[in-house]
Amino acid sequence: MTTLTSKSNSKIKQIRALLAQRKEREASGLFVAEGIRHVGEACAAGARLEYICYSPDRLRSDFALRLIREQESLGLPCLAVSDDVFANLAEKDNPPGILAVVQQPRLSLDDLQPGKFQKGVALTAPQDPGNIGSILRTLDATGASGLLLLEDPSHNQYSADPYHPGSVRASMGAIFWLPIVKCDFENFRAWAKRNQYTVYGTSAHATLDYCQVESYRQPLILLMGSEREGLFPDQALACDVLLKMPMLGRVTSLNLATATGVMLYKILEKLA
Amino acid sequence: MTTLTSKSNSKIKQIRALLAQRKEREASGLFVAEGIRHVGEACAAGARLEYICYSPDRLRSDFALRLIREQESLGLPCLAVSDDVFANLAEKDNPPGILAVVQQPRLSLDDLQPGKFQKGVALTAPQDPGNIGSILRTLDATGASGLLLLEDPSHNQYSADPYHPGSVRASMGAIFWLPIVKCDFENFRAWAKRNQYTVYGTSAHATLDYCQVESYRQPLILLMGSEREGLFPDQALACDVLLKMPMLGRVTSLNLATATGVMLYKILEKLA
Repeated sequence: MTTLTSKSNSKIKQIRALLAQRKEREASGLFVAEGIRHVGEACAAGARLEYICYSPDRLRSDFALRLIREQESLGLPCLAVSDDVFANLAEKDNPPGILAVVQQPRLSLDDLQPGKFQKGVALTAPQDPGNIGSILRTLDATGASGLLLLEDPSHNQYSADPYHPGSVRASMGAIFWLPIVKCDFENFRAWAKRNQYTVYGTSAHATLDYCQVESYRQPLILLMGSEREGLFPDQALACDVLLKMPMLGRVTSLNLATATGVMLYKILEKLA
Repeated sequence: MTTLTSKSNSKIKQIRALLAQRKEREASGLFVAEGIRHVGEACAAGARLEYICYSPDRLRSDFALRLIREQESLGLPCLAVSDDVFANLAEKDNPPGILAVVQQPRLSLDDLQPGKFQKGVALTAPQDPGNIGSILRTLDATGASGLLLLEDPSHNQYSADPYHPGSVRASMGAIFWLPIVKCDFENFRAWAKRNQYTVYGTSAHATLDYCQVESYRQPLILLMGSEREGLFPDQALACDVLLKMPMLGRVTSLNLATATGVMLYKILEKLA
C-alpha cells in the first residue's frame, strides 16, 4: 500500500469538487458518503461505489478497516491518503478518516412499483439539504417507501440537491436505502392519480385537523409544500385530503422536517 | 440622516463579531436578530434592543421602515449604513437590509414560576444551533412554556449557544417570546422534583410506546437527550416516565428537532 500525499491528485480534486459543487455532482452523477457509518451503509445497501478514500493514520475502527479489506478484495479501488490530505478534504475539524464516492441512482417515477411503494413522501421544491436528509431519516424510521422531489416550473420552484453533503449526513445512511425520484409536479399528479394513491397534504387553510383522520389509507403520498411558501393553491388541488396542524402561537408553520415527522408518525399510528 | 459607509465603525465590527463568535456573545450578553420578521418580533415581544442597523438602499418594506421610525421616536439608536457595508455583514447573498442587536435575557430556574411554566422542554446539551431554533419554533406552535438547556459536566456535556445566528433564524422569532434557561442537570433534577413536574423522557431502551400514554399530566417537562448520545442511564433516572418511539428501519434515532416535534404534538393531543 502506498499512501498518497499530494493534494493535487485528480481523485482528491474530484472529491473536493463533489463536496462543494452541485454542478459537479450533477455532471458526474456521483456524490460523497463521509464517515464510517455512511460508507458502511452504502456498502450494506449495495450502492454502486466508485472508490473509497481513507487515511490510514486517522482510521482506527476495526469495522472500517475490515470494510476496506473486503471492498478491495471485491476489486474496488481504495485510495490511502496522508492525514494531511484527508483533513484538507473535510469541512469538519475532526474528519472521520474515510469516505466513498458513490453513484447517484437517478430513478424516475416509472422505476417505482406502486404495489411496493405504499407510503411515500413528496416534497415540493425543498430548499434546505438538511431538511431533505432529516426527512429521509424519518422515512426510514417510520417504514416509508421513499421520497419524491417535485419541481414546479410554473412557480419557478426547484428542489435542493438530495446529494448535497448536508443532506447525505442528515440522512444517517437512509439515503442509500430509499428510492429518491425527482420529477415534475404535473407528472407526479398524473402518476398519483393513475396509480390510485390517496394524496394527503398539509395546509394552514385546511379545516380538518390531522388527528381527526380516522385512518390513513394506503397506497398514500404525504405531500408537503416548500419551506417558504407551503403548497400553492393549484398544488393543493392535487391532494385528496388537506390537513392542518395546530399552530397555537405566533409562528404560522413548523420546520419542514419537523412537520413531515409529526405527520409520518401520525400516519404510522393510524394506518388503515 | 447620515449613512455610514465605513466597515471599520465600532458597531459594524461588533455586529460582525456577535454573528461569528460565541465568545463575543457571551462576554457582551448580546446577540443579533436578522431580517424584518425577527426585528419585528423582537420589538413586539418587548425584547431589550441596543440598536438597529439597516440599509436604506436595500430596505423597501413599509412595515420595516415604520418600525424604524417608531423605534427612533422611542429613543433607540438606528444606524443607517450603505448597501455595501450591510452586504458585508451578512452570510447570505441577499441579506434583508435590517438587523437589531438585542440583549440576552439570561434567566435562571428561579425566574420561572412553576404555576405558569406548565409544559416545558429540557434538552441535554444539544449540539446543533439549528435544532435549538427549530425546537423553539415548535414550542411556540404547540403552546409550550419554554426551553431548558441542560449541561452535565459529569458527562462533559455542554449546550450549543441558543443565540447563535443559526438558532435565532430557525426559531422564526419564537426566541423572543419564550423563556430560555441554561442550567446544570443536577439543579434541573432537584427543581423538577421540588415543583412536582412529571418528567417524560425518550429512550431507545424504554418499553412504553409514546402513543400508549393515556394522558400527559401537567406540569410536565419533556426531557430529550443529546443528538449523539441520547440520555445517559443516570440522566434517564430523572424521568418519571420513559417512552420509546417506533424505529422500523435501520436508523436508531430521529433528528432531535423532529423527535421533539413528534413528542410535543402527541403531548398536545393527549394533555390531561
